[in-house]
Amino acid sequence: MIDLPDLTAVKSALRAQRIETPSWAFANSGTRFKVFTQAGVPRTAEEKIADAATVHRFTGVAPTVALHIPWDRVEDFRALRAFANDLGVEIGAINTNVFQDNDYKLGSVTNPDAGIRRKATDHLLEAISIMDATGSRDLKLWFADGLNYPGQDDLRDRQDRLAAALREAYDRLGDDQRMLLEYKFFEPAFYATDVPDWGTSYAHCLELGEKATVCIDTGHHAPGTNIEFIVAFLLRAGKLGAFDFNSRFYADDDLMAGAADPFQLFRIMNEIVRGDALDPAYGINFMLDQCHNIEAKIPAIIRSVMNVQEATAKALLVDRAALRTAQQSGDVLGANAVLMDAYNTDVRPILAEVRADAGLDPDPVAAYHRSGYQQKIEAERADGQQAGWGA
Amino acid sequence: MIDLPDLTAVKSALRAQRIETPSWAFANSGTRFKVFTQAGVPRTAEEKIADAATVHRFTGVAPTVALHIPWDRVEDFRALRAFANDLGVEIGAINTNVFQDNDYKLGSVTNPDAGIRRKATDHLLEAISIMDATGSRDLKLWFADGLNYPGQDDLRDRQDRLAAALREAYDRLGDDQRMLLEYKFFEPAFYATDVPDWGTSYAHCLELGEKATVCIDTGHHAPGTNIEFIVAFLLRAGKLGAFDFNSRFYADDDLMAGAADPFQLFRIMNEIVRGDALDPAYGINFMLDQCHNIEAKIPAIIRSVMNVQEATAKALLVDRAALRTAQQSGDVLGANAVLMDAYNTDVRPILAEVRADAGLDPDPVAAYHRSGYQQKIEAERADGQQAGWGA
Amino acid sequence: MIDLPDLTAVKSALRAQRIETPSWAFANSGTRFKVFTQAGVPRTAEEKIADAATVHRFTGVAPTVALHIPWDRVEDFRALRAFANDLGVEIGAINTNVFQDNDYKLGSVTNPDAGIRRKATDHLLEAISIMDATGSRDLKLWFADGLNYPGQDDLRDRQDRLAAALREAYDRLGDDQRMLLEYKFFEPAFYATDVPDWGTSYAHCLELGEKATVCIDTGHHAPGTNIEFIVAFLLRAGKLGAFDFNSRFYADDDLMAGAADPFQLFRIMNEIVRGDALDPAYGINFMLDQCHNIEAKIPAIIRSVMNVQEATAKALLVDRAALRTAQQSGDVLGANAVLMDAYNTDVRPILAEVRADAGLDPDPVAAYHRSGYQQKIEAERADGQQAGWGA
Amino acid sequence: MIDLPDLTAVKSALRAQRIETPSWAFANSGTRFKVFTQAGVPRTAEEKIADAATVHRFTGVAPTVALHIPWDRVEDFRALRAFANDLGVEIGAINTNVFQDNDYKLGSVTNPDAGIRRKATDHLLEAISIMDATGSRDLKLWFADGLNYPGQDDLRDRQDRLAAALREAYDRLGDDQRMLLEYKFFEPAFYATDVPDWGTSYAHCLELGEKATVCIDTGHHAPGTNIEFIVAFLLRAGKLGAFDFNSRFYADDDLMAGAADPFQLFRIMNEIVRGDALDPAYGINFMLDQCHNIEAKIPAIIRSVMNVQEATAKALLVDRAALRTAQQSGDVLGANAVLMDAYNTDVRPILAEVRADAGLDPDPVAAYHRSGYQQKIEAERADGQQAGWGA
Repeated sequence: MIDLPDLTAVKSALRAQRIETPSWAFANSGTRFKVFTQAGVPRTAEEKIADAATVHRFTGVAPTVALHIPWDRVEDFRALRAFANDLGVEIGAINTNVFQDNDYKLGSVTNPDAGIRRKATDHLLEAISIMDATGSRDLKLWFADGLNYPGQDDLRDRQDRLAAALREAYDRLGDDQRMLLEYKFFEPAFYATDVPDWGTSYAHCLELGEKATVCIDTGHHAPGTNIEFIVAFLLRAGKLGAFDFNSRFYADDDLMAGAADPFQLFRIMNEIVRGDALDPAYGINFMLDQCHNIEAKIPAIIRSVMNVQEATAKALLVDRAALRTAQQSGDVLGANAVLMDAYNTDVRPILAEVRADAGLDPDPVAAYHRSGYQQKIEAERADGQQAGWGA
Repeated sequence: MIDLPDLTAVKSALRAQRIETPSWAFANSGTRFKVFTQAGVPRTAEEKIADAATVHRFTGVAPTVALHIPWDRVEDFRALRAFANDLGVEIGAINTNVFQDNDYKLGSVTNPDAGIRRKATDHLLEAISIMDATGSRDLKLWFADGLNYPGQDDLRDRQDRLAAALREAYDRLGDDQRMLLEYKFFEPAFYATDVPDWGTSYAHCLELGEKATVCIDTGHHAPGTNIEFIVAFLLRAGKLGAFDFNSRFYADDDLMAGAADPFQLFRIMNEIVRGDALDPAYGINFMLDQCHNIEAKIPAIIRSVMNVQEATAKALLVDRAALRTAQQSGDVLGANAVLMDAYNTDVRPILAEVRADAGLDPDPVAAYHRSGYQQKIEAERADGQQAGWGA
Repeated sequence: MIDLPDLTAVKSALRAQRIETPSWAFANSGTRFKVFTQAGVPRTAEEKIADAATVHRFTGVAPTVALHIPWDRVEDFRALRAFANDLGVEIGAINTNVFQDNDYKLGSVTNPDAGIRRKATDHLLEAISIMDATGSRDLKLWFADGLNYPGQDDLRDRQDRLAAALREAYDRLGDDQRMLLEYKFFEPAFYATDVPDWGTSYAHCLELGEKATVCIDTGHHAPGTNIEFIVAFLLRAGKLGAFDFNSRFYADDDLMAGAADPFQLFRIMNEIVRGDALDPAYGINFMLDQCHNIEAKIPAIIRSVMNVQEATAKALLVDRAALRTAQQSGDVLGANAVLMDAYNTDVRPILAEVRADAGLDPDPVAAYHRSGYQQKIEAERADGQQAGWGA
Repeated sequence: MIDLPDLTAVKSALRAQRIETPSWAFANSGTRFKVFTQAGVPRTAEEKIADAATVHRFTGVAPTVALHIPWDRVEDFRALRAFANDLGVEIGAINTNVFQDNDYKLGSVTNPDAGIRRKATDHLLEAISIMDATGSRDLKLWFADGLNYPGQDDLRDRQDRLAAALREAYDRLGDDQRMLLEYKFFEPAFYATDVPDWGTSYAHCLELGEKATVCIDTGHHAPGTNIEFIVAFLLRAGKLGAFDFNSRFYADDDLMAGAADPFQLFRIMNEIVRGDALDPAYGINFMLDQCHNIEAKIPAIIRSVMNVQEATAKALLVDRAALRTAQQSGDVLGANAVLMDAYNTDVRPILAEVRADAGLDPDPVAAYHRSGYQQKIEAERADGQQAGWGA
């Protein structure tokens, strides 16, 4: 079993950790087969922010909430920011949406139609204007663009179009703004996707400049992909900008982070700790991006935050000196054992202490259930149109 | 190159081939991200049947159309059958839908709630009553049932519940009616699916009796699965009842049959021909089950029918005697070459002749485009609610 | 955090647990690219058994060792049994090998050549004779048979040949003997494998009779396969006979059990505990089947045994009543949390106590390293031909 | 059906096509389970070159043969070159082997041990010296380096070590020499591979300089990877240097090119033709890299060459103007149909003519079988040690 000598530093790092929640995860979501609605689901951007603030209130480590445009479009984004601040949270990354307009059936910034490309690129520029108002640092770009059939469009031309749109948006970024380029293996495109893997995202970011970095969505890889390798590689290259945490058994299942393969989440956080990249000052945006199709949304997000915390705590417990010694001496089993010792440790007591030290309930899920918040929103939000992915 | 000695028999087999089209493929469909609507899409079961009849009019091999309940529910199914007959087609398999009601969030026939199981099972029984009215032979069952999270429900109890519901439905089948049990690797359930593979379906069918057989949806397998092996195995066991043809690069992409891996479709049809199972009298229901999210629907279905025909024609051209000789003598390259010779043959001229012999246009897609049908439905179906998966 | 009320029962179950080690895992192994030899590797069946006995001496739960014929062929198997007994272990399953003779290039029991099929089947019968001598209960069958190219042989004929060979071997089994039929997704065959999945194995076992059951090798599945579903299904059907434990990130990597996905191993053991199938009296043979290509072999096997123990301990800690209540009430998050509470518990102290209670060192790996056994075998086994997969 | 207007240009392109054969594919190979030997297999580098020259004699498009060092190490490489030239072929790429020495158990250029890294890097430098003697342009680098267990070594340090070794070798390259960096998803490493994907290879090549380009082995990808996307991307970036053609259903199966998914091979060649990169002057080295474990080796390589030719011929038949028109107008089905029209064409008559025009037998496999070469080598090479992967 592992000795726990430096809990002060571990707890300090855990206290400083920041995880961003996504406004859309509080809304209804589903599969192509069915969206099951839930009671109390927010109807407006403000209500989504209120839910995010609630998650922060119980976890203490989720002080920012990412928005999705146009889903969260409001008249006055400065007012929205003030609203958020009043609830104790900040607006985080601005996510663009160029996949839910009929025009985008065959693509947005890579569409063969120049007019549609213009429209999509303008949306990217609009999002940066929104960032000016919300004070957001990060423009997060995910493109659903791709092809369903071989021959449908020219793979290479689409890269040219993509590069042009990215360049235009990049050049519009302010001094303190950044671009995060997400990649995805497939879906909704079923033959070819225009940014299918980290290599494609990395290559474009490299060409764009230092304000462009890669966003790793943990559910967007081919089966068997070693995600922590990508983390290590991008950290070494200075090009890892953000995570979209979620988990999956099959495709982009968008389950709670850490639910499908907690050991993988630990290995990812282990590379983060090894690369001294956990501290918010390093600049990585650790976001959740999930769909709670059948489980209660706010508790699921609280649980996801806790899962990331637990993986982080275990990563912080890795005995780096012992690990390095074993690695350098070629002791395969010894090195693996050092890592596993940390993973096999029950870190929940440590996190309970961290929370108690911060004046929080050591069990955020139980505290949420006792708080009456769920009953309140179910009562208050009975009327009107619930927000969903398309709302 | 291959000699083509027995084109009479080949053409005869191609003329006798039957492919069933799915009513829902004429309707709007999409991904969880967006459903892109198309002009002229049917609004009623009747309009879907009219589209199916049109596909049959141009291909000559698609004389039946499968229905999906409740999507295609009408007041009078006998009248619907008569309507179809007037257009030259028959009603094919009745597909149940126990996944789009809010009650089914945690499952239908495997739900932990007995009341919901009752409701779902009653729907299966209702579908058999509809079969009585439509004259359908096949009850096709696909269950979206499954779990998103480990522990969410008891895997084994759910098998007991599944078996009970299947038994009740099976016992309700008439003498000339059959049950087709489909399996699916994942989606919409993302951790465990209650009928995830052919083994599960086969085991239940075996227990149920001879009227229960397996339905193979070509898009419902784990990556790398050898589907033709399953075909061969089930033919040997007398338990292959139907196909849902479509194609995929990644998951259940539901692309046009033969679009993603035409060689695989050929290998599947090769096992069918090898097993003397192509003839409609054998009893296999060769259905399409596809989603034409971005391409024109009727031409896509015509094209899919043609792709199945071409794969079949190639399979019919395999020199069985030469193949067996090479196989028996352990001539790996020779045996493979016999198969590839057939696959590499351009069978389009043969199929053009088969069509011409039957009084059809040799190019069904071009004929459809010239026919004015598309313009007609786009004009006539401008008002009202288009049918979608949920319509 | 979890309450630990019933540690008496948990410890009792852990004490009764039995894990079988494979003789060949003590020998050299590698990939097609290279076999890296290690110092002290056994040269004979006796030395392999001595290593297995050593694993048992330090873990206390590995009292049987599986043999592989012809790798472990000796003149006198009764003497080998006595030798094993003297070291405190019993001979476990007899594994057949019909893949390393030149005759088997195109298959063994499914070979198109009847003479080669005869030879292969005779080997199966010989293995049963060896079982008579060793007192083994289990005949374990894995066939490398399959095809590399489409058309190479007839898929269906090969099933007929397989069934005939299995029947002949089955009928030769004594009253207390069983047949375990293993399946494998691919490798060494790269197009089609004759027993590729549990469905195929299950179907043959069902036809053979009650002495035939399925062996699940945890590395033999398509990507994404839910193995615990298969466990639950086969337990329900009374057809789960054995495990070959190992772990994998990609293919049949044969890494240490629990090394790649410890959560999956826990979920598997959770189904075992849920099905009351852990007790040796239930009849499942929990075997390891691994290749320690780059890590020290005996410590790797000790570690693997411990990993299975830890997964089992966590499964035993699952609060079954709470789980069932949450499942029945449709509380997705609550049910998942019950499972995760057990998984997140650090069970190493419990196992240390179980070992101490049994007079063992609480840390078997450290005890092994201190024991001098490794130095002893490295000195004693310096000459002669080390055993490898083919030795 | 497709019109074939420009067969002159098509034939001219097919005549100019060049495919490089690998010396090691003529030698014995196998899986970790068994290497099945074949009669007539070469025993020396010279005999491998003789076999390669034979393939060229019957196909006319395979005038170079790649060597693998140390498998093909000879005293005098200039003499080996002259030997090859006398047989009508040239020495192609020099492949390094830093995976079959005991020192490389934990890696070669990424090994934690600096001395082993030195040894491995020296081997790379030696290979360049051999290139000076053989007149080879291409240094092909594939590293088996990686980890089997999480924690075994530091992922990021290994990238530093890799970069250092690559830099040293790169700086040693002569003016007309190039470095090809291959990537591989997994195997022989089963947890992490140091160059696992095209992104990693691309990033290193970009940093190294213009003489470094990516080599795509068609069997080295995660399941579902769209290889033609990578081809298109690298062509656009000017970083595609070579192919290792082979095919696979599961992992790195190393089957004959085009045997598993001929449509994929066509799509790859379609991107090559679209990018005007087929001409040898463009600089891509189109190599085979295969293992003929159970099929006759020389005929298998001839067949593979023909499969690449057929895929190329189909790609050359694509009606580029019609394709572009359909793509630009968003005609999904029309654009796909243009591509499929070419794919569905039987190009074997065209290739037969190309061969006849060049004075070759239109059926190279049949001609080989008639030639007596196989009987000759089986007689002549009866003694001595056959070459295998390790020979």
